[in-house]
Amino acid sequence: MNEFPPSLDKLINEFTKFPGIGPKTAERLALYTLKMSNEDVKSIIDALSEAKSKIKFCKSCFSITEDEVCGICKSEKRDRDTICVVENYRDVVQIEKTGEYRGLYHVLMGHIAPLEGVGPRNLKINELVDRIEIEGIKEIILATNPNVEGDATSIYIAKLLKNKNVKITRIARGLPVGGDLEFADTLTLSKSLQGRETLNID
Amino acid sequence: MNEFPPSLDKLINEFTKFPGIGPKTAERLALYTLKMSNEDVKSIIDALSEAKSKIKFCKSCFSITEDEVCGICKSEKRDRDTICVVENYRDVVQIEKTGEYRGLYHVLMGHIAPLEGVGPRNLKINELVDRIEIEGIKEIILATNPNVEGDATSIYIAKLLKNKNVKITRIARGLPVGGDLEFADTLTLSKSLQGRETLNID
Repeated sequence: MNEFPPSLDKLINEFTKFPGIGPKTAERLALYTLKMSNEDVKSIIDALSEAKSKIKFCKSCFSITEDEVCGICKSEKRDRDTICVVENYRDVVQIEKTGEYRGLYHVLMGHIAPLEGVGPRNLKINELVDRIEIEGIKEIILATNPNVEGDATSIYIAKLLKNKNVKITRIARGLPVGGDLEFADTLTLSKSLQGRETLNID
Repeated sequence: MNEFPPSLDKLINEFTKFPGIGPKTAERLALYTLKMSNEDVKSIIDALSEAKSKIKFCKSCFSITEDEVCGICKSEKRDRDTICVVENYRDVVQIEKTGEYRGLYHVLMGHIAPLEGVGPRNLKINELVDRIEIEGIKEIILATNPNVEGDATSIYIAKLLKNKNVKITRIARGLPVGGDLEFADTLTLSKSLQGRETLNID
């Protein structure tokens, strides 16, 4: 006996489809499932099918919602002049946690990555352009990830919107708060020097 | 908006029930699920319910099987004089991988851990004693994990079987003490099988 029973093998294989789950972890999760009560397994199955059937992407900003339009797009408390452009829904959650931003969002659903076959057409960029005109947006804050793909995506969007009557900004790159200058990488330090701000002490 | 939609929250919560899956990983897995095609999610759901309904514990050794009795217990090629006692099914898989052992197994389904409320009665120890008599076993190899709980479990079993007409051995401490049998490399495990020692309880 060198193998698991076929149905267990299949389950292990399904678990490996998740990102960051290798064969060993998948094996552990699958064997744990067998130890779980039938009710617990049923509740996982129900949660999977419920989430999959109920959750949609917001028609306006492509965030995640159970309705047609997400809570932020619907809210009357948000500033409707500004759109913060992010790569993924998780970034929306992260920015919301700061409590700093009161505008709208636009989720691109990825970043430009030619090697992975992801071009501008695979992202929600056209939808962003449409929104700017239809909703009369005044400022676009580009908040893609501060890496090669994120920067390329931001620069592409900035060029595309160049002649539109909209202010384009990008979130600051610099040293993380609570970090140590000594351990900062050269590139981050360069960016934080370039983006230095006037310090006003009154 | 500080929260996920309810059905997504529920799914995240279900993922955290797995061992080693924290809230952050659960979030990542749940969000990945939403990106998957409906077919992929359906195939996970099917695998979960299929594995859960098909897989049973072997009536004889409490290993995992899709039949009443597992392949090893059924096999005519195995040495029916010897039982290797392990804590979990994964340990059976690990020992089988060495190719060193040709006897039968007995899965205790855990170890003695009073702090977790697991006593000898919660394990398949009585079933082991019955097997020794019914099947006329000549040697018991104790292959519990080489840590406190595993050792306690082995010593308990050795004491229990002291007056039975059966040789009791324990796999050699080639394994790093305090380690986990599940993660041992094949060679170390082979050596520890070869070097098993007689356990004398006075």
